[in-house]
Amino acid sequence: MHKVTFKFENSEDVNVFAAFGENLLEVARKTNVAIDAPCSGNAACGKCRVKLVGGNLESKKTLHISDEEYAAGWRLACVSTVCDDVEVLVPDIASAYRSRMKVADLSSPGEIKIFDDLKEQVLEAGIELKNDMEVVSVEMDIPSLDDTMPDNERFTRVLQAQTGMEKVRIPFCVLKKLSYVLRQSGFKVQAVMRRNDRDVFVYDVLKQDEKAVVSGLAIDIGTTTVSAIIIDMLSGEILAKGSAGNGQIRYGADVINRIIESLKQGGSEKLQNAIVEETINPLIDTMCKQAKLRSEQIYRMSVAANTTMNHLLMGVYADPVRMEPYIPTFFKTNSVFAGDLGIKVNPCAHIIVAPNIGSYVGGDITAGAFVSMVWNKPEFSLFIDLGTNGEIVFGNSDFMFSCACSAGPAFEGGDISCGMRATDGAIEACTIDEETMEPTYTVVGDPGTKPVGLCGSGIIDVIAELFRCGIISPKGKFIREGKRVRHDKDGMGSYIIAFEEDAGSVKDVEINEVDIDNFIRAKGAIFSAIRTMLSYCDFDISMIEHVYVAGGIGSGINMKNAIRIGMFPDVPLELYEYIGNSSLVGAYAMLYSRQSEQKVYEIAQNMTYIELSAIPSYMDEFVGACFLPHTDAALFPNIGQE
Amino acid sequence: MHKVTFKFENSEDVNVFAAFGENLLEVARKTNVAIDAPCSGNAACGKCRVKLVGGNLESKKTLHISDEEYAAGWRLACVSTVCDDVEVLVPDIASAYRSRMKVADLSSPGEIKIFDDLKEQVLEAGIELKNDMEVVSVEMDIPSLDDTMPDNERFTRVLQAQTGMEKVRIPFCVLKKLSYVLRQSGFKVQAVMRRNDRDVFVYDVLKQDEKAVVSGLAIDIGTTTVSAIIIDMLSGEILAKGSAGNGQIRYGADVINRIIESLKQGGSEKLQNAIVEETINPLIDTMCKQAKLRSEQIYRMSVAANTTMNHLLMGVYADPVRMEPYIPTFFKTNSVFAGDLGIKVNPCAHIIVAPNIGSYVGGDITAGAFVSMVWNKPEFSLFIDLGTNGEIVFGNSDFMFSCACSAGPAFEGGDISCGMRATDGAIEACTIDEETMEPTYTVVGDPGTKPVGLCGSGIIDVIAELFRCGIISPKGKFIREGKRVRHDKDGMGSYIIAFEEDAGSVKDVEINEVDIDNFIRAKGAIFSAIRTMLSYCDFDISMIEHVYVAGGIGSGINMKNAIRIGMFPDVPLELYEYIGNSSLVGAYAMLYSRQSEQKVYEIAQNMTYIELSAIPSYMDEFVGACFLPHTDAALFPNIGQE
Repeated sequence: MHKVTFKFENSEDVNVFAAFGENLLEVARKTNVAIDAPCSGNAACGKCRVKLVGGNLESKKTLHISDEEYAAGWRLACVSTVCDDVEVLVPDIASAYRSRMKVADLSSPGEIKIFDDLKEQVLEAGIELKNDMEVVSVEMDIPSLDDTMPDNERFTRVLQAQTGMEKVRIPFCVLKKLSYVLRQSGFKVQAVMRRNDRDVFVYDVLKQDEKAVVSGLAIDIGTTTVSAIIIDMLSGEILAKGSAGNGQIRYGADVINRIIESLKQGGSEKLQNAIVEETINPLIDTMCKQAKLRSEQIYRMSVAANTTMNHLLMGVYADPVRMEPYIPTFFKTNSVFAGDLGIKVNPCAHIIVAPNIGSYVGGDITAGAFVSMVWNKPEFSLFIDLGTNGEIVFGNSDFMFSCACSAGPAFEGGDISCGMRATDGAIEACTIDEETMEPTYTVVGDPGTKPVGLCGSGIIDVIAELFRCGIISPKGKFIREGKRVRHDKDGMGSYIIAFEEDAGSVKDVEINEVDIDNFIRAKGAIFSAIRTMLSYCDFDISMIEHVYVAGGIGSGINMKNAIRIGMFPDVPLELYEYIGNSSLVGAYAMLYSRQSEQKVYEIAQNMTYIELSAIPSYMDEFVGACFLPHTDAALFPNIGQE
Repeated sequence: MHKVTFKFENSEDVNVFAAFGENLLEVARKTNVAIDAPCSGNAACGKCRVKLVGGNLESKKTLHISDEEYAAGWRLACVSTVCDDVEVLVPDIASAYRSRMKVADLSSPGEIKIFDDLKEQVLEAGIELKNDMEVVSVEMDIPSLDDTMPDNERFTRVLQAQTGMEKVRIPFCVLKKLSYVLRQSGFKVQAVMRRNDRDVFVYDVLKQDEKAVVSGLAIDIGTTTVSAIIIDMLSGEILAKGSAGNGQIRYGADVINRIIESLKQGGSEKLQNAIVEETINPLIDTMCKQAKLRSEQIYRMSVAANTTMNHLLMGVYADPVRMEPYIPTFFKTNSVFAGDLGIKVNPCAHIIVAPNIGSYVGGDITAGAFVSMVWNKPEFSLFIDLGTNGEIVFGNSDFMFSCACSAGPAFEGGDISCGMRATDGAIEACTIDEETMEPTYTVVGDPGTKPVGLCGSGIIDVIAELFRCGIISPKGKFIREGKRVRHDKDGMGSYIIAFEEDAGSVKDVEINEVDIDNFIRAKGAIFSAIRTMLSYCDFDISMIEHVYVAGGIGSGINMKNAIRIGMFPDVPLELYEYIGNSSLVGAYAMLYSRQSEQKVYEIAQNMTYIELSAIPSYMDEFVGACFLPHTDAALFPNIGQE
């Protein structure tokens, strides 16, 4: 046995004994040391860096660590094994993956408009914008020796009289405090409750002079990123917004790796803990401070998430989701409360789960499809949600098909060496001069903010421009030389967008052939999925009458460039519309409007799920789409015409 | 600050700093050191003994510690204050109060007969002996790529078809395991469920070859003692029995002291913890081992407890229960599940709570009154439950009154120096020779078991015999001298029933004037409550046609002696019937039979609660009853006539 010491910048050492030959990433995991490892230890992502500061470690060399870095002690944990006593420094994962995954500012005018647009469209569709929650004043007689009715009965009778409802349900969490609040407030109180056609359910009882805030939490749980809003359930107003990286990311970047991890001893709890304790609860904390409310004042929550995220959130056995015939435990469930999952809102809060429709098309898409309004329009529309999984819906008010493909985290800046989310310092748009090869770019943030990386829309622009200028080939290899093109000793080319001296980070902001290759596979997955599904349903790209693009990629996405690289179909630009994080907006709709919630269930019921992996032509389509723009240039007739 | 070291026989020292003048019992409590203190630190019970083994302690001398004991270092913690660094040895409380409070063996023929009698009487009353739980085999189609319905829907549909019910509820705890069990068992499973006229609720899903045990837990939570049984919900058979001292006892012997304790910072959690974590959960553990079942196989539970115990069990604010006008939070509640309270049975298990009808007449009495069958008979019957509180019901099939009085723990052997429960070594019956003053006694246990103390029925006999033989006066003072009568230096008399050499303990088994006084006050409380209630309702002792006696006092109770000391009314002996722990038997009925449960709610609704403290004559009645047998000898015309 050897002693392994994990050192941290801001916390105490963790010591553990490990056997000779044990994998360092595994040792870290079983010791609950958080090391970022989106590829789940396959030496693919290069994120699980640790720095050797004492003792010895047997490590393979990989492309992800330069010679200088190796000399300075940097190693990848996933390719390192214990061979002696060793001390390693672990970079702060929280700041690493949280900042990397920070989402666009939800309070930007564009994002607010999206919520306003939704409300308008929902009303146009004849759907009521209201729920069944309310605050009611309740005044009781003060008990005496001649009137000794117990508190819960006293309270119930007045509520029965006031609401005209026979059945009034007082859950345990209210029962516990009832007596105290009644006496603190002279038997004049406020009841936070919901009333439907069956019964009245009391969520809370408050003193008469207390400010009653009835709030709700809508949350979009992405494989990579989690976004949430707290709203006022009575007015629909957004009280707070927030986002964070999904804490599960250290157990794998994609859903398959996460499921595998969840099957290990204690794995299900570990994954659930990573999303609930490490991600959602801190997010709620922050948002509650922002909105100046107590988390118990959140009385309902809605979740839009893909099928796997839904299962892992609930700690439900997820293996059948990934194994043929790909059966989830549930599409729809009504039986989960915040208290069941340890989510720090009111423990009685019911969790509304946007329904899944298949193993790979989840509630994020049914919620998003609702927001797209595809179901309410006669035009044939395409809805594309760009996330770690890409999901695609096609249809109109008569029918809807959907499918999913695995794009990986590239659209969110993952799997890209200088990738980042569309936050301060991200290059979000770029043009390149064909002659000088010099770039001109826009950076997210205040004027003068220096670039530190590339967000999704920036990567699309850079690749599209490199291709347009003939700097890279249709295969994504560098074919021109110049000041900004560099090759390492293995011959791998890269293009420097910002040299170290101009950048906000300590190194060049660049994109290399591995990055471009990762991105080409991601965009290829999307395009081939669109093509395969359309032709499977006897449709054709030319029949598309509208395209809705959703996802955290940002409103800055240049549709022309996305078409140019063969990511989106070559239809007129004016047909494209970016609708933001439709999954979160859909969760908002389900939370705030009961009729919207019902409509999402209806949409889910009527949507046909197509399992792409069961269609033989999909693989060929994918291979063809892994070029710029495509091996079949005829599919992109307008490219190069401008 | 001084260092206080608590030492234990079987565990490590606990060190804490305390201020000069701090009370040692308080220091122990805030450090979570368990010291038995049934009187809650009022220097009344003499149980909070600790032994000074180092340093100094400022202690008052009390009657509870003899000179020899004081010299050996024994002190009462409640009258000791910190004045220096100090080390004290704390006797093992677990064995102290647990063994002291062990209840009579539930598997004795007498106790089993009580359950059998109940079933017979319940059936005679036209009440069904059945509940709505069942085990159903469910067989589903195995999913395929052409049949990808999610597991919960697949399961629900088959159950809908099999039961003919539209609404099938699958709670979160079943949803979590559903997918795994279905696949482990080839989609042929067993569902543990209940079906009523509204819906089907699934408690569990089990593999086809697993033995399905559907069990339930009935529990009687007394202020001093907790008794429980586990039953087979399908057959009604008793699978396991157990009992333990109520772990809350160290926070006070009676409900008032416990409520006061619960109002302190963190008190409510502390009291709840003492009953749930320290008492009920270990009891369940033991019983499950006995019955060879897993605690998750307990799918329903019922609780019969007094109003305060109900409130403290649930962690509900209990102050209004003790303060005029004495209002509980609830009489009846349906909204509590085992998971809410941390009780280690199936977390979905619904808790059926026997309804309270007043602050001092709780579910233990409504459940017990059901068992007495008073409500089903034309005769005017008296039902007396002897516990830490004495509760009394009077009525017949047309009406019922009830009231409560505070008797203290004397009937269960508390507040009596050699008191104990009716377990091995307890003297349960005794006669005394009038001439020689020599006792003849029966000891619980195998032949030859040596006496170690007195249980309730033994105390009644000893006092009755001492009084009959003229050894003590009507005031309970010793008025004869002899070998077995002893006086200490303060003049306090005592009678030795078994000398040290004949006893199973290291000291004499004796009863002293303080014990007799305590017991006289207890019996006086009972008798005066009966008299006060009857005359308040315009009845008279002579109108009593039947008397049911319930409580843990044991079937050995000698009714004649109980009358002789003026505890019970002087009506013909043949009218008396001992019906055991009716509270537990009633909890059993509510658990096993839905119609019994309904009947108990009905009884509670129809029972009139009388608040004795609001009746001016009660105090006079009580004072009069604090004699042997009573100041008004005319009330006991038959005493001395035999």
